[in-house]
Amino acid sequence: MMVAVLPMTSGKAVPGGVCRVGGAGTLIVMAEPFLDMTPEEFRRRGYAMVDWVADYLEKVDDLPVQSGMAPGQIRDLLPDQAPENPEDFEAIAADLDRIVVPGLTNWTSPGWFAFFPSSNSGPGILGELAAAGLGQQGMMWATSPVCTELENVMMDWMVDLLGLPAWWKTAGPGGGVMQQTASDASHVAMVVARERARRGGADISRCAAYTSTQANSAIEKGLRVAGYGFIRLVEVDGVYAMRADALSEAVGRDRAAGLVPTFVCTTVGTTATTAVDPVRAVGELAKEEGMWHHVDAAFAGNAMICEEYRHHQDGLELADSYSVNPYKWMPMTFDGSLFYVADRAPMIQALSILPPFLRNEASESGRVIDYRDWHVALGRRFRSLKLWFVLRYYGAEAIRARIRANTAWAADLAARVEEDPRLEMAAPAPFSLVCFRHRAGNEATDSLAAAVNRSGHSYLTTSRIDGRSFLRVAIAQANTRKEHVDRLWRLIDETAQAV
Amino acid sequence: MMVAVLPMTSGKAVPGGVCRVGGAGTLIVMAEPFLDMTPEEFRRRGYAMVDWVADYLEKVDDLPVQSGMAPGQIRDLLPDQAPENPEDFEAIAADLDRIVVPGLTNWTSPGWFAFFPSSNSGPGILGELAAAGLGQQGMMWATSPVCTELENVMMDWMVDLLGLPAWWKTAGPGGGVMQQTASDASHVAMVVARERARRGGADISRCAAYTSTQANSAIEKGLRVAGYGFIRLVEVDGVYAMRADALSEAVGRDRAAGLVPTFVCTTVGTTATTAVDPVRAVGELAKEEGMWHHVDAAFAGNAMICEEYRHHQDGLELADSYSVNPYKWMPMTFDGSLFYVADRAPMIQALSILPPFLRNEASESGRVIDYRDWHVALGRRFRSLKLWFVLRYYGAEAIRARIRANTAWAADLAARVEEDPRLEMAAPAPFSLVCFRHRAGNEATDSLAAAVNRSGHSYLTTSRIDGRSFLRVAIAQANTRKEHVDRLWRLIDETAQAV
Repeated sequence: MMVAVLPMTSGKAVPGGVCRVGGAGTLIVMAEPFLDMTPEEFRRRGYAMVDWVADYLEKVDDLPVQSGMAPGQIRDLLPDQAPENPEDFEAIAADLDRIVVPGLTNWTSPGWFAFFPSSNSGPGILGELAAAGLGQQGMMWATSPVCTELENVMMDWMVDLLGLPAWWKTAGPGGGVMQQTASDASHVAMVVARERARRGGADISRCAAYTSTQANSAIEKGLRVAGYGFIRLVEVDGVYAMRADALSEAVGRDRAAGLVPTFVCTTVGTTATTAVDPVRAVGELAKEEGMWHHVDAAFAGNAMICEEYRHHQDGLELADSYSVNPYKWMPMTFDGSLFYVADRAPMIQALSILPPFLRNEASESGRVIDYRDWHVALGRRFRSLKLWFVLRYYGAEAIRARIRANTAWAADLAARVEEDPRLEMAAPAPFSLVCFRHRAGNEATDSLAAAVNRSGHSYLTTSRIDGRSFLRVAIAQANTRKEHVDRLWRLIDETAQAV
Repeated sequence: MMVAVLPMTSGKAVPGGVCRVGGAGTLIVMAEPFLDMTPEEFRRRGYAMVDWVADYLEKVDDLPVQSGMAPGQIRDLLPDQAPENPEDFEAIAADLDRIVVPGLTNWTSPGWFAFFPSSNSGPGILGELAAAGLGQQGMMWATSPVCTELENVMMDWMVDLLGLPAWWKTAGPGGGVMQQTASDASHVAMVVARERARRGGADISRCAAYTSTQANSAIEKGLRVAGYGFIRLVEVDGVYAMRADALSEAVGRDRAAGLVPTFVCTTVGTTATTAVDPVRAVGELAKEEGMWHHVDAAFAGNAMICEEYRHHQDGLELADSYSVNPYKWMPMTFDGSLFYVADRAPMIQALSILPPFLRNEASESGRVIDYRDWHVALGRRFRSLKLWFVLRYYGAEAIRARIRANTAWAADLAARVEEDPRLEMAAPAPFSLVCFRHRAGNEATDSLAAAVNRSGHSYLTTSRIDGRSFLRVAIAQANTRKEHVDRLWRLIDETAQAV
């Protein structure tokens, strides 16, 4: 490679190449377009970035959980145009503190009690670093055997860890895959169910789908995206679980009206209150009616690593598909939703297309899994690497212990609420989400939430059922310790009087 | 936090906590479940992982591009069960060399000429590291203002860099979003088009969609997933571009048969041969017929950073949506597909659902973008960070220079093929993909490909049109230099005689 030293502007294209700043302000012209970061520079910048992330993780408890930036403020800090010429990496990295950190909502804060967490951990981050470095695109076994087979094994490990049916393992008729998010996973289940119905002669626009009024909005959205003509939000009981009798009636009414009941989604641990739908009763009805039964256990499914919670998903052997997000309560870095099917044949029938450019010996042997047939996307990242790192670094027993501790802290918080005459529980707390309200009504409840969030150290979100507001305290962030829950309680206790 | 030193087994749960190995083989019992990697350990492990990635990137040219592992071999190296107890991170990292590297297809190799590349780079990897460390979940502006606004700005930068219509910027009626892959992006376009037709009174099962026989299989798959009842693969001309007259006839026939022409996808740079569909003619027809026109420029769209290629997408002002994947020809680490719409209103109408738990002031002000309404997934990673790093570290001019160099090398390779009496071009090479075959027929062509791939240093894939095989040499991997193309040519030259 020809290298010449010339007095020129950095980044300028010259015949056959581009110049970069060299030592002592000279400029090096590369004979070919220079798009490397040399391994030496990568090491240096990489160590610095590791330090930056470590510093961030160390100080995250001192940062306000929510960003103080107003709409448009971050945008205003950024130039309108991309740079024509190279910038020094140090200047770029410095903008992490100047522009990025002020605009963060700090999901990694130990004071995170909002939504459900998107958790994180050292081994999870390092798994993402390794995956990015390896740049795998695992659409087929042939395009990354290890991306495929490590994922097979991780999904099989999780079957045992979570007490799921053994035939959901890779060697069985079912199998598992890491999708981007639970929304993607449930959407695939809806599409497969719809296609199964269509092959059976149904008209899509007559297909009906069912979930409870308390299902995550992603379920209703997925059904709309999948083109279901009729979406029924089934009534819930006093503890916000789907009423199996109401489902049965809705299905009967629809069938009488000439519709085709096609898909039902139960939730184990709803978003608002972690209510648990009757998985077995719905599963039995789904079998009778020929409906696909998907179980959304995005958050609470993580608890099933502890045997004592598994009664909540009794009846899973009747389900057609299932999803759980390890980033919600295990310390795995986002993204990655575990999606299982009891029988992979209808999924592959619905989603597989084999054009000439993807033909290869391994696929044709039938001895491998090509995960491109398991989701909408063709390309896919090497997500199983971080799950492997996390499960090995902590071990199953530590993950169980943390889930048990979180639920113990939640029970403790719930007991404090129950003892407090100003507050009342809004729903049972079967896992580690505690839902409660101020007895003085919505305004007091919303003010309480606003006061907690103004504190900066803690962040929670509210929800509303039947017009009544409540606070949701989700205790599941990997960095949260008992002291952070206690700090939150002190703040609630102090504020409840004032509002 | 209480700490005690006891002689116990590592990882075992004890009342109130879990123990870990401490110094000199003693065991530390943490009073609370211990799921930290301390910042100190993170630094140490992080530096080591940066070194490991740097070593991998340095040696990747010496690794065989394709894995030598047989189906099941990697699986057999892994235990059947997750560990109960913690493992030392060094042991985990050592398995990268023992288990992961042998199972890689090395997409980062400079000898990568297969499919289209999934490129990679130092700043891209460091962007992924920072994003993983920050653990953002950018479903709404409020859940990460910087994830939203940096993405707004990156998408706007790319509008200017690629010469796209100015109203596709955030401030206009359109806008852009980073989706996971081009398959996800085009699927969203199909769903929005379908919902627009449905609101107009159409029955989904009567909706017809059109693309060419040369479109990526993801288009046909997306249309099936989106539930289109009629999918028409329109004939191509002698250079494999969609015939606008054939499209017009197909639309006419379908309309006469009572169907609803709803969606058409053109490709700028098809997967098989980088053929370019007539964007303007199709755009005009789409306007007349009220069809949604999506332009899939996943690979070749990157070339539009150089003005001289933009004539290939003349007529873009008539398009409804567009996608391009910077990881295919710019040095951005996978994943991330840039998806633009000319008007975001129908997309938000089709994809927005606002349940109580997502309500917030910023969203209700209407002054922010909530990207959850721009795709199927609710959760989303902080993908714009790596694009920001990459664009700033290299600058636009260096990216242009590399794209120009790649196409010059491709032209050079095509000239060699044309001069060689044993070979013939299979299609024009308007960008940096060169398609050619052995004149002796399919068997000789396939043998030539197999010989190249057996070399280990280079990897290409074949495709087939009208029953005739051809080699595809995609020159676009960020690490590829002229010398690697020359090495590939020498191998082809030597082998062509033998087959």
